[in-house]
Amino acid sequence: MPKLDLDTIPQSNATGYPGDYALPVQGRWYRRLAPASGIDDFGVSHVVLKPGAWSSQRHWHEGEDEFVVMLSGEAVLVDDAGETVMLPGDCAAFPKGDGNGHVLQNRSGADCAFIAVGRASQTDCHYPDIDMHLTDGRFVHKDGSSF
Amino acid sequence: MPKLDLDTIPQSNATGYPGDYALPVQGRWYRRLAPASGIDDFGVSHVVLKPGAWSSQRHWHEGEDEFVVMLSGEAVLVDDAGETVMLPGDCAAFPKGDGNGHVLQNRSGADCAFIAVGRASQTDCHYPDIDMHLTDGRFVHKDGSSF
Repeated sequence: MPKLDLDTIPQSNATGYPGDYALPVQGRWYRRLAPASGIDDFGVSHVVLKPGAWSSQRHWHEGEDEFVVMLSGEAVLVDDAGETVMLPGDCAAFPKGDGNGHVLQNRSGADCAFIAVGRASQTDCHYPDIDMHLTDGRFVHKDGSSF
Repeated sequence: MPKLDLDTIPQSNATGYPGDYALPVQGRWYRRLAPASGIDDFGVSHVVLKPGAWSSQRHWHEGEDEFVVMLSGEAVLVDDAGETVMLPGDCAAFPKGDGNGHVLQNRSGADCAFIAVGRASQTDCHYPDIDMHLTDGRFVHKDGSSF
């Protein structure tokens, strides 16, 4: 059956972010739809942000494109250009290597949900606002030292 | 600016389907979001189906995964398992090579819209209901003869 029963797909708020950097994503509940549905050309996540939650720390990938489409509720897209409200049906694309860190923040009093499409990180990821960097699949300080 | 202004992205109902096989997709109006936004790891289309329109002829790809999420309106997903109503927020995945032909049909009286994610067809595509086949990037009859 191609239609997915989201309720049967495990939902997680797990994160590899170290220490307090994990706090903004504690209310980010995601389902990995690609492994659950037998596709692997790209990754697809169904993400619910509880009030106050962020999609991630603000970041950009050196080598992986990302795309999001809002399904319900309201989020604020923060990037180098400023802040942009995202409503259901709104789409945003984040080209690899563009150096423009981005994050979705739920500043509303209700859940919001979106679909995110991308690929597993195989390149460095940059976090312009915090002393964190992703390289070789692990988070380190910007000077390369371990957490 | 990562948020896409859909109104500025060209909309097309073009199809390569030969003859009358093109009729069900005349009311399929799509925007190619990936080239418009600078991403190329995967393709993303924003598709509006007018009342009566189909997303495609029923088909399955040998080598490309597909994923859709409904944004508005209502469509009927037809595949080997039967018919399934798709409403806003509903997701469906179509794994490559599964042999299960699929199509979204708008049988309602209003437009519906969805996002489709995939990759450009580089393998054969099979159309179980009609005498058409995609191979080497062109449509032929099932016996390999030209239209």
